[in-house]
Amino acid sequence: MRILILGGDGYLGWPTALRLSASGHEIAVVDNFSRRRWHHENSTDSLTPIALLGDRIDVWEGLSGKRIESFIGDIEDGEFLDRIVRTTLPEAIVHYGEQPSAPFSMVSRQHAVLTQQTNVIGTLNLLFSIRDHVPNCHLVKLGTMGEYGTPNIDIEEGFLEIEHKGRRDLLPFPKLPGSLYHLSKVHDSHNIHFACRTWGLRATDLNQGVVYGIETEETAADERLVTRFDYDEYFGTALNRFCVQAVIGHPLTVYGRGGQTRGLLNIRDTLQCVELAVAHPAKLSEFRVFNQFTQQFTIAEVAELVQRAGTELGYDVRVQSFPNPRVEAEEHYYNAVNTKLHDLGLQPHLLDEQLVQSMLETISRHRDRVIARAIVPRTRWRPGELPGGGHPAATPETLSDESSAAR
Amino acid sequence: MRILILGGDGYLGWPTALRLSASGHEIAVVDNFSRRRWHHENSTDSLTPIALLGDRIDVWEGLSGKRIESFIGDIEDGEFLDRIVRTTLPEAIVHYGEQPSAPFSMVSRQHAVLTQQTNVIGTLNLLFSIRDHVPNCHLVKLGTMGEYGTPNIDIEEGFLEIEHKGRRDLLPFPKLPGSLYHLSKVHDSHNIHFACRTWGLRATDLNQGVVYGIETEETAADERLVTRFDYDEYFGTALNRFCVQAVIGHPLTVYGRGGQTRGLLNIRDTLQCVELAVAHPAKLSEFRVFNQFTQQFTIAEVAELVQRAGTELGYDVRVQSFPNPRVEAEEHYYNAVNTKLHDLGLQPHLLDEQLVQSMLETISRHRDRVIARAIVPRTRWRPGELPGGGHPAATPETLSDESSAAR
Repeated sequence: MRILILGGDGYLGWPTALRLSASGHEIAVVDNFSRRRWHHENSTDSLTPIALLGDRIDVWEGLSGKRIESFIGDIEDGEFLDRIVRTTLPEAIVHYGEQPSAPFSMVSRQHAVLTQQTNVIGTLNLLFSIRDHVPNCHLVKLGTMGEYGTPNIDIEEGFLEIEHKGRRDLLPFPKLPGSLYHLSKVHDSHNIHFACRTWGLRATDLNQGVVYGIETEETAADERLVTRFDYDEYFGTALNRFCVQAVIGHPLTVYGRGGQTRGLLNIRDTLQCVELAVAHPAKLSEFRVFNQFTQQFTIAEVAELVQRAGTELGYDVRVQSFPNPRVEAEEHYYNAVNTKLHDLGLQPHLLDEQLVQSMLETISRHRDRVIARAIVPRTRWRPGELPGGGHPAATPETLSDESSAAR
Repeated sequence: MRILILGGDGYLGWPTALRLSASGHEIAVVDNFSRRRWHHENSTDSLTPIALLGDRIDVWEGLSGKRIESFIGDIEDGEFLDRIVRTTLPEAIVHYGEQPSAPFSMVSRQHAVLTQQTNVIGTLNLLFSIRDHVPNCHLVKLGTMGEYGTPNIDIEEGFLEIEHKGRRDLLPFPKLPGSLYHLSKVHDSHNIHFACRTWGLRATDLNQGVVYGIETEETAADERLVTRFDYDEYFGTALNRFCVQAVIGHPLTVYGRGGQTRGLLNIRDTLQCVELAVAHPAKLSEFRVFNQFTQQFTIAEVAELVQRAGTELGYDVRVQSFPNPRVEAEEHYYNAVNTKLHDLGLQPHLLDEQLVQSMLETISRHRDRVIARAIVPRTRWRPGELPGGGHPAATPETLSDESSAAR
């Protein structure tokens, strides 16, 4: 199958390109290196030293005999994207090409506008390119479980059967996203759904949980194929960040009481889910939503697991409650359905101490690359407000407490 | 009260500025004249000859002794907007400053991107300006009933109490908007709701129905104060368009069977609703949604009313089924709640033959200004497809039938 991967240089995009190439598909990747650029702007970096895209592609070709095509540019530039779609005529498009960080979107007006513009306009351009050039193409779009927020009812997969005043309808699940980034994904979902019901496009929206892990089958084959591993406040995800903190002896940065529940999954399962979605496309006019995670944990549980696994390896792992920079409930009901990907055959890699220990070992090989400034969160959902003030679940620490903890 | 009106040169923005000025508020308007510009681009125009903004303001000052301040520029330019908000320190902001047309948003990728960018980024900029400079300011945002689409359940005002698997929550009403314009308003609503719950802002989202009418108390005082009156496919609303068609002897352009039900309201009631919202602000942190219409009609009923009223005045009014350029259900359940504005004291001007006849009389005074090319819809929700194909409620007419009807 001809597959185009937007954001194909990223944490998930690059391993996905390798996996789908290994499976025999014809792969082209698009990227504008925004992640590499944003790291430069913040003087942070991937823990793993990542090769240039051109070198990665050459190494993979040397190993596999398969060539991955690449296009460099912004999908917010509709003419650029249109040209690629017209040229490559993909049968499936895997869309990772977005600004993926909640804290980044909350830094300032400029960051918020950049996030919603990149994500919403980029995806809107994509929908037009598909409509005009490859209307049968299957769009596999990465969404996020964060689109739902934490409602007091079970979270279904995209839609909800609602009974109201004696009448019934199947309607989009109501969304309560927790950041301007998460909102951009909600906007995307609405736009894509519209394109499916109005233009007859086909799409799968993968509402992904928090991804953890470093290696996939293909990236492990040669160190020059390694994917990026972020642990900074913007682009690092919870478990990945905790593992780096454990290795360098920084207290694990649990926000508030750590009662926030999230769906998590292994990076290997991300690839498996995307491959399953591609292999079982949505029907024309269908907008399909899969909740893509394998297990639910509270953040405190994740921290405890890292502490247990690290202690066994001889690390001194402390867990510390940090003032929550976000505006969110720290204790809440959470029960999300995730049966559709299992029905397609997903075989999850479950989280255990052994997996965490293998992450800790990989991280310790790169520990001299850890940049300390990346560890402690500085972006506040309510800037100007001391963390700890203003919402009920906050802890008594002050900003200066936290700043000193950062050093 | 100091009130800033975004889009203050428009069909509703200008009469709102006059009304709130007449009521004793201190008014500043912001506009970039995009509506005037888009008309130039399409070689169409307002039926009523409208004065330059500076002249309108001078005439109003001469009549009332009250000065309306004006700022010219784009609210997508965050620095520009920020400067205005910082300077005027409004206690309320009435936000009409958006691209307001569904067909316009469906013309091309460029039109879609312009619409979502103008509306979503403009409103996002506004939320940051309010947060940073006037956090107590009450945002009165014009939304649309079209955000809801036509679900098979009753439409509530913004939120819905949902019971699911034995648990309950009050969640945002699920949205099924019918165009990329309507989607931009859904995105706005989500962003504004977030700003209220995260930053503690206060907002009223007025989900407005289809507005009709020409005159308001203030615009009638001097012909140089008249507001614009659009009857073209982009910016004209159904009843206004039908009235112009009746006067020039063009068959009323009912789409398909005309069974589409919509909420309508008189332009005088728009002003009344906005004034009520301003006088009774939302609480801090509150995101309040009012469904702003006074009566529900099918499009066929509206056409019949115009036919009846016109025939009595001696016009030869024919109603004709045109192929529906939109993708929408032409027969559907529709029952929307609209009690909140009534509870605040709204006294509706109801639609009757007499009102339509007064519109027909005003229009006939300007009938030599009618531009024929503006009458028949040319924008297709599914371009390249003959209208009539592809969705169940379509009529058998062909594109060439319709094109000949246009001349």
